[in-house]
Amino acid sequence: MSTPDRTAPAAPETVTLFRNGYPESHHRVSAVVADAAGRVLHAWGDADATVFPRSALKPLQALPLLESGAADAFAVSDEELALAIASHNGLPMHVERVAAWLARLGLSTDDLECGAHPPFDAGATKSLYHDHAEPNPLHNNCSGKHTGMLATCLHLGLPTAGYSRPEHPLQQRILEVYAETTGTPAAAMPQGIDGCSLPAAAMPLAGLARAMARFAAPDDHFAADRAAAARRICRAWATHPELVAGPSTFNTDAMTLTGGRALLKRGAQGVYGGLVPDLGLGLAIKAESGSSIAADAMTAVVLRVLGVADETIWRRMTDLPYFKETSWRGLPAGEYRPVEGWPG
Amino acid sequence: MSTPDRTAPAAPETVTLFRNGYPESHHRVSAVVADAAGRVLHAWGDADATVFPRSALKPLQALPLLESGAADAFAVSDEELALAIASHNGLPMHVERVAAWLARLGLSTDDLECGAHPPFDAGATKSLYHDHAEPNPLHNNCSGKHTGMLATCLHLGLPTAGYSRPEHPLQQRILEVYAETTGTPAAAMPQGIDGCSLPAAAMPLAGLARAMARFAAPDDHFAADRAAAARRICRAWATHPELVAGPSTFNTDAMTLTGGRALLKRGAQGVYGGLVPDLGLGLAIKAESGSSIAADAMTAVVLRVLGVADETIWRRMTDLPYFKETSWRGLPAGEYRPVEGWPG
Repeated sequence: MSTPDRTAPAAPETVTLFRNGYPESHHRVSAVVADAAGRVLHAWGDADATVFPRSALKPLQALPLLESGAADAFAVSDEELALAIASHNGLPMHVERVAAWLARLGLSTDDLECGAHPPFDAGATKSLYHDHAEPNPLHNNCSGKHTGMLATCLHLGLPTAGYSRPEHPLQQRILEVYAETTGTPAAAMPQGIDGCSLPAAAMPLAGLARAMARFAAPDDHFAADRAAAARRICRAWATHPELVAGPSTFNTDAMTLTGGRALLKRGAQGVYGGLVPDLGLGLAIKAESGSSIAADAMTAVVLRVLGVADETIWRRMTDLPYFKETSWRGLPAGEYRPVEGWPG
Repeated sequence: MSTPDRTAPAAPETVTLFRNGYPESHHRVSAVVADAAGRVLHAWGDADATVFPRSALKPLQALPLLESGAADAFAVSDEELALAIASHNGLPMHVERVAAWLARLGLSTDDLECGAHPPFDAGATKSLYHDHAEPNPLHNNCSGKHTGMLATCLHLGLPTAGYSRPEHPLQQRILEVYAETTGTPAAAMPQGIDGCSLPAAAMPLAGLARAMARFAAPDDHFAADRAAAARRICRAWATHPELVAGPSTFNTDAMTLTGGRALLKRGAQGVYGGLVPDLGLGLAIKAESGSSIAADAMTAVVLRVLGVADETIWRRMTDLPYFKETSWRGLPAGEYRPVEGWPG
């Protein structure tokens, strides 16, 4: 485990896939823990590396839904808020809630600009094909976020068509939110396109950790409206971990195992953002290779270092089935683990 | 591009995912090109790194099928031989041929010890679920290899039950084949379990390249029986690239684009083995992260360096759709490319 060192980057943690105890593949992972004042307390690898946080930014993207008054105007529930920050697995519990929310807005799947992909959950995909149905935009892991954006546009009188485009006022507003919460000027953030066709901004890994830390201590670092919004997002996040991702994902399992003490949000290409409200700390993680499982493993390490995962939680986390390699006939074949710090 | 350097490892090539031109994720990839005399002609990264070649070893695993006389006794076709070295995508063209071969042996799917997984091809999986069918061992990407092993056992009078276990005489024979062709003593090879529950051996990356090079010049480096077996495997490999993997895979597409000049075999966790018969060269590639797409990209680079991919082939290879990132709605979002050497 490394200690804080801001003069030279600490070595990245390496998460290795071991096959029968022999190393097979390696992932370098950078991680940062920051407090709401912006101080970096722990760093592995390059805390200042510019990364695309992808869906780890969803809690920030949801702020305008609350700050605009749209959430109150449309009586958005905590379950719906959890879906607004979710990368969900496309299970009926996700899809049906987003569909009901969209209908309440008077909109349909035709208004969603996220595109369609089969549910991330293999069983949900199987059920869909059993029924000879096709994936639609509701199955897109980002459908809740897109519905939240549509609600914001309706409430503000902004056009709903084209809400996903970089020049749309809502996306411009969200870019300002990134700048205000991460401390990175909007003009300094490289811009790309995400899988769901929304703008994808890049920023220093430490900036993501700082924004997350501010969610952990909103009253000290946000104006009253934003602090209230952040508190509501955190409440929804903590109480509905199964809606933020889904069963058999580390994102959901780790939140459940910590009893909601850690709020975590994965992003594509091996990213996590998260916070520990009772410690007032934020965290940000990026696997250089983009590996999800490596980011999962490193998130477990960070939660252990912070003491959020005690010995019991740590043992359960590191025993989760997706950290194991198993043959298709069920023989144990290997496991993912950080080179240091994982139980033997 | 690096040049041969056997005193110090050359830098690994880095394959990067760029999002709108900005780097998002990186993969370090090692690669070796060797000749049949065992000389390393090109090396990127650590040529002596111990790697699990996984399914890149299938052409070696198929040698006993031919050397034992089983292939002749059971009138095994070139299509079936291609499937014996395949990691196929579970399309009907793969599954039906393996099923027919297995039936001709008087065996059934119950005899396959590879386990079941949904077809790698998403459309094939969709069709299966449309029909309310379940994946069975024929859909396993290794089903052809397992059928070839069963044929070998039948012909040699070895027990078929348990043919996949490390202590079975066929697996012991295959371990000797690895030693004889790669130049690595059997006792020096770490052993694990593969996804299909067969033994998985680890060996130096350069050893895999040397074994592949010997397939390219079999008469100079193998006894007559093995040389004949290697020639038949190469003939099947070159003439049925679509059976060795499947449509829309780099493994098959690259072989097709080179008109069969390059014989390529992917392995799980970012591995390729391959050869260029007319140059008498073998190649071996391993992405440190285990990324398939990074291994694909590096294979394209090696084929370019060797001149197997001329300017036209190179442009087509690098324009293949899976090297692009596209949003679910079809917007261009990014691309994978080696930092050096990819067309601008």
